[in-house]
Amino acid sequence: MTTSLLGTSFIGYSRSAGTEPCGNAVQPGTGSKLEPAYLTATPDEVDHAMALAAAAFPVYSNLSGKNRAVFLRAITTEIETVVDDIVERGMLETALPEPRLRGETARTTGQLRMFANLIEEGSWVDARIDRADPDRKPIPKVDLRSMLRPLGPVAVFCASNFPMAYSVAGGDSASALAAGCPVIVIAHASHPGVAEIVANAVIRAAKLTHMPEGVFSVLYGGGRKVGQAVVKHPVTQAVGFTGSRAGGTALMDSAASRKQPIPVYAEMSSVNPVVILAGALERGEEALAEAFFGSLTLGVGQFCTNPGLVFLANGNGEKFLTKLKTLIEAGTPGMMLNAAICQSFADSTAAFAATPGVETLARSTAEAGPGQGAPAVFIVSISDFLKNEALQSEMFGPATLIVRGSLEEIEAAIPHLEGQLTASLHATDAELAANSSLIHALQTRAGRLIFNGFPTGVEVCNSIVHGGPFPATSDGRSTSVGTMAIFRFCRAVAWQSFPDAALPAELQEANPLGIKRIMG
Amino acid sequence: MTTSLLGTSFIGYSRSAGTEPCGNAVQPGTGSKLEPAYLTATPDEVDHAMALAAAAFPVYSNLSGKNRAVFLRAITTEIETVVDDIVERGMLETALPEPRLRGETARTTGQLRMFANLIEEGSWVDARIDRADPDRKPIPKVDLRSMLRPLGPVAVFCASNFPMAYSVAGGDSASALAAGCPVIVIAHASHPGVAEIVANAVIRAAKLTHMPEGVFSVLYGGGRKVGQAVVKHPVTQAVGFTGSRAGGTALMDSAASRKQPIPVYAEMSSVNPVVILAGALERGEEALAEAFFGSLTLGVGQFCTNPGLVFLANGNGEKFLTKLKTLIEAGTPGMMLNAAICQSFADSTAAFAATPGVETLARSTAEAGPGQGAPAVFIVSISDFLKNEALQSEMFGPATLIVRGSLEEIEAAIPHLEGQLTASLHATDAELAANSSLIHALQTRAGRLIFNGFPTGVEVCNSIVHGGPFPATSDGRSTSVGTMAIFRFCRAVAWQSFPDAALPAELQEANPLGIKRIMG
Repeated sequence: MTTSLLGTSFIGYSRSAGTEPCGNAVQPGTGSKLEPAYLTATPDEVDHAMALAAAAFPVYSNLSGKNRAVFLRAITTEIETVVDDIVERGMLETALPEPRLRGETARTTGQLRMFANLIEEGSWVDARIDRADPDRKPIPKVDLRSMLRPLGPVAVFCASNFPMAYSVAGGDSASALAAGCPVIVIAHASHPGVAEIVANAVIRAAKLTHMPEGVFSVLYGGGRKVGQAVVKHPVTQAVGFTGSRAGGTALMDSAASRKQPIPVYAEMSSVNPVVILAGALERGEEALAEAFFGSLTLGVGQFCTNPGLVFLANGNGEKFLTKLKTLIEAGTPGMMLNAAICQSFADSTAAFAATPGVETLARSTAEAGPGQGAPAVFIVSISDFLKNEALQSEMFGPATLIVRGSLEEIEAAIPHLEGQLTASLHATDAELAANSSLIHALQTRAGRLIFNGFPTGVEVCNSIVHGGPFPATSDGRSTSVGTMAIFRFCRAVAWQSFPDAALPAELQEANPLGIKRIMG
Repeated sequence: MTTSLLGTSFIGYSRSAGTEPCGNAVQPGTGSKLEPAYLTATPDEVDHAMALAAAAFPVYSNLSGKNRAVFLRAITTEIETVVDDIVERGMLETALPEPRLRGETARTTGQLRMFANLIEEGSWVDARIDRADPDRKPIPKVDLRSMLRPLGPVAVFCASNFPMAYSVAGGDSASALAAGCPVIVIAHASHPGVAEIVANAVIRAAKLTHMPEGVFSVLYGGGRKVGQAVVKHPVTQAVGFTGSRAGGTALMDSAASRKQPIPVYAEMSSVNPVVILAGALERGEEALAEAFFGSLTLGVGQFCTNPGLVFLANGNGEKFLTKLKTLIEAGTPGMMLNAAICQSFADSTAAFAATPGVETLARSTAEAGPGQGAPAVFIVSISDFLKNEALQSEMFGPATLIVRGSLEEIEAAIPHLEGQLTASLHATDAELAANSSLIHALQTRAGRLIFNGFPTGVEVCNSIVHGGPFPATSDGRSTSVGTMAIFRFCRAVAWQSFPDAALPAELQEANPLGIKRIMG
């Protein structure tokens, strides 16, 4: 690896002198410590990073979209110079395979370029213009113009399961920077080295493109200590988080109890229900089982879109279940991201297996080695499922619960599900047309509806919604993937009776940026 | 009055049988009770209203925008048949003058028509289309389409200071109904009779246009009892509120502590800072004082946009202050909306007057009669202002605080202000150009920036923002006035790989509604 790692926080353009150790990265499976030891940012250093962010905000937020896009593109260039370092360190820290880490890095730079394109073009600000009418009766109409403006400095928490795409320069950072918000990243203890490599790249890009110091800081020390300090800091105006339900709700509570409550965008917990109707089975039960198994075990099941709940009507799908049993039993245990996730997977599958009414349909016959998770499928009747809310909780890893009941019971159960990122329906077109109330029920519970597909694989584009009612996300009106993610870090501001020259370019009469605008 | 009042809640299309009295309306000033006595909705009746709303949601939310617009327009027609009743009862309940009540009723029907126009046209749903590309490498691209969908049943609290425009069929109800959300209104104890007249009109419109029962209910019994029950009810998916900071933050706490937290849009507290620079004074100090006095005393100061805080540089504006003193001293006390508001105004002005460093510049020399509020102006140095956060609190009524300091001190003070609905700057164009950092500071604190004007008078249009950072609103990303208010009650939903015929019309390939769409 060509990058040398120092183990200290990035406080704007300086490196921290924080001396209290917060630990080394640990190689999954072997438990070996990786050098260097990382050091917790001190409270003074946190304050300094926040002060730099506050000072950067007026400068950075008033740069043009084109200027901010130059910064985002420079980040992609700098990341691309260290891809091999990212992959090398990432494999050690997360046990993710090389193709996944290369793919995730490409997704990360792709997201940055997507936001660069969005803000270069500029229409995303939803500019609205209502011209004055001094002759209007009974009172004259004033000139009013509005557009989206950034909220202020944003705290971004790195995600354990996405060391690149939802970490230092991932989707939350990219959308907040695109909006015009300085970002303070809290690194994850699972992959501090990848965080340091990427942080160096972002800081190089910020300097090269003459961004104000404080537009970007990266802090070590963990979510509970340093993270909570940042969330509670008065400078912070919004929070982006991908992680556990316990972690996300703790941040929601902290943000709500601030003197000035701020929005928290926590993407937390989803079991992504899949409803399989008879017609889909008739097309080929075994092929469906294979496709489902692929989605369930992709990335050792460590995706928020993992299909953790399947509704299958009574009497249907015997061949599907037989094939799935075979696949699961032959399934290979996979190395999980870290020891805590591995332990949590073992605990949650054990709890499901021990729940009254739950039968273990199949488990991998191979024994899981240290740090590994092995595929498992449980099965339960819909009446037992509805009796026990714990069966709606997420087993983060390659495990799923199959729920059996009549189609009527399945439809009646959907409104009792917690909020989800996705809901999938496998059916024929005729079944789809005949079950509009089922579709409506699924729609009220999820952010993305999938027809004849599985939820893993999230397309990064304009129309993607990666969010859903609580607890899928803390704020069900938001998405953390795709261009709409930028809206999380903005609010509309109106200018009344301002002279044209004093208006933002987006709102000036001549429309110098040539953007789409809503004319009143 | 031709409408006969029963004093009971509207549970869908039925009238409540609730028997526990929650009181009569009381005429401001005289304290006379107005008939009838109103009755609190029972817990069973609240549950029944919520169950009807839950049942109405799938039907109502799947009506076309054109269909929902027919309902909104029918509400305007039904309200227009009872305008005289509204005005007659409104004058008794609120002491607002007839022209104000007629104007507010026209604003209410105007808002309903504005939302009807918006949803008839249909582009507001932000439809986004990313077509499939089965040949894309390394993996095929799926078809993804998204649009805004309604959240579900919405609780709307009537506002004491807007018996029409922010009450039963006001902006919150109109925007929620336009979005496709059933509405459960909690009537305000200050004007239950107006609420009943308008509720009858809405229910007539719902029946005439064949809306599902439960699309609209109106409950009596007060915010603390019935209101909290509705906010905590699992069926409720969002809350609209205009009122006090204490009331709004209590709702925020209730919503955040639900098993499923829900968004609260509370428009609460704003002192609407006005900054006056030297150039504006040079144009005519006395005229400026007259315009300011007009804004301050409009509607006995009972607007959330009342200018309650003025920054005036040291040494400037002596004639402005002298003229303002004269106007205030000659100012007439006005009847306030209810006894509680009147008492709160007396308490808050007394607290300001007793605060160390605060001088009473002027008070109306006329004695305020029972229920009346009299204009008052206080003055304080910027150093004393910054020492005491209580001086940022709202005196709801015709009173303001003038803060004096150097221009540098004023600019430095702005970031210490709480969030505001508006911020106004009086200056020349040259001063505007020379003070960009002041403008930026004001922009970070408010939802609407006003140049050479005062904040009262809120234009209802596409570009208006009537919201701002906490505590102006609970959610600074929202506006409660104008077409953007509809976004509060929606979330984006994506459809992946759905056959065209099963997609909402807004997302179908042929664009049958002819709306604007974002093509990926």
